[in-house]
Amino acid sequence: MTAPDPKLLANLRVVLARTSHPGNIGAAARAMKTMGLAQLYLVDPAIFPNSQADAMASGAIDVLANARVCATLAEALADTTLALGVSARRRDIVAEVLTPAEAAARLLGEARGAPVALVFGNETNGLTNEELGLCHALVTIPANPAYSSLNLAAAVQVLAYEVRQAWLGHPDWPQPEIDAASGSELENFYVHLETALAELDFLNPGSPGKLMLKLRRLFSRTRLAREDVNILRGILTAAQAGRRSRRE
Amino acid sequence: MTAPDPKLLANLRVVLARTSHPGNIGAAARAMKTMGLAQLYLVDPAIFPNSQADAMASGAIDVLANARVCATLAEALADTTLALGVSARRRDIVAEVLTPAEAAARLLGEARGAPVALVFGNETNGLTNEELGLCHALVTIPANPAYSSLNLAAAVQVLAYEVRQAWLGHPDWPQPEIDAASGSELENFYVHLETALAELDFLNPGSPGKLMLKLRRLFSRTRLAREDVNILRGILTAAQAGRRSRRE
Repeated sequence: MTAPDPKLLANLRVVLARTSHPGNIGAAARAMKTMGLAQLYLVDPAIFPNSQADAMASGAIDVLANARVCATLAEALADTTLALGVSARRRDIVAEVLTPAEAAARLLGEARGAPVALVFGNETNGLTNEELGLCHALVTIPANPAYSSLNLAAAVQVLAYEVRQAWLGHPDWPQPEIDAASGSELENFYVHLETALAELDFLNPGSPGKLMLKLRRLFSRTRLAREDVNILRGILTAAQAGRRSRRE
Repeated sequence: MTAPDPKLLANLRVVLARTSHPGNIGAAARAMKTMGLAQLYLVDPAIFPNSQADAMASGAIDVLANARVCATLAEALADTTLALGVSARRRDIVAEVLTPAEAAARLLGEARGAPVALVFGNETNGLTNEELGLCHALVTIPANPAYSSLNLAAAVQVLAYEVRQAWLGHPDWPQPEIDAASGSELENFYVHLETALAELDFLNPGSPGKLMLKLRRLFSRTRLAREDVNILRGILTAAQAGRRSRRE
């Protein structure tokens, strides 16, 4: 058996969105490092840096020191090609639901070619619909239905543990076949889509309602290749040209 | 698949030996309850009960309230038939070493007939040789060799998680119910799409090439709901209206 490739773990980032308690950030950093993960992204944390975070990080203070703070989840995912949102089951969201083990396999397979992300929401409210819209699938930790509320760092520990077990078990992850579009390419597509729909009077820019959210979910259930994005944007440009020439 | 037997989890106790920090006892109680474990035994804890333990237990305060405090590990294990000690690898101890998944299977198999225990040592020093002498085997969480120090409650979470996964057997995660579009609705959509793209001069009807094939693949990787199809056809109609009015 060949040794597992460290690059796979280096390409996997943990993204904590809008974390309320700095102690949880530190404990999450510790959980990551025990499993060999080092890329921590913090989206709009309530308090950071902080001495309580340092204390809970214990020997993983380097993970905190290298953490990247981002203003938005989109920024934290800009160069990733796969983002999985850790969440309890959501009846209101149509999305593929993975177990932690399935998620680990998916992430490591993709990490051979590009950065990938595990996304955790706020301690109290979890991930918003908008944040889930940026994720390609959900990961649900099978828990006690009567009390399924894992502490944030405990959830990070379980996912990081499954990632490490998968990494140790299969040193050679096959490369994904698709030349996946990156997070920023997808965001540019969505901006283009929203602009074009507004020009077509299909969407009211003042109240986009749930339309853009539904379209995001539709396209993130599939995994858009770079070429797919180019085709779709070509269609949008053609539609815009039709509408603009009418107005001239 | 028959439902798992709750008695197996009820017969599995978590034993924390000489815990220094009461917050860790509370966090461990929470980790246990999220995975359906309720039997907590505390051997000579430094501080218990304690408000910090209560705070960290969150919704698992009942596990703390029912915890049994024992003077010695032998007392906590008195009625058990299998005790596994969670520990880093120990060169000085000759013992069988199990992975968390192997330990979970062993414990649940035994729990059908008698109480069994998972034993966790002090935060700083782990289990003493004497304590390990009361355990039938070691459980080692495969961790980062450069930093293998899991927080106590995080280790409890990983083991409890593996116990629950083993207990669930082969969890059958149904995909979310989606009001999927029928085959004929999809075909009507593709006809509409091809027509609209031709009107937009984006597609040459005489040689559609691989474009329609690529678009079909894109949309079939996802599962389109009926509502998705309606939205997409609405967009196409708006784009056609723009182009037609230009030609008038």
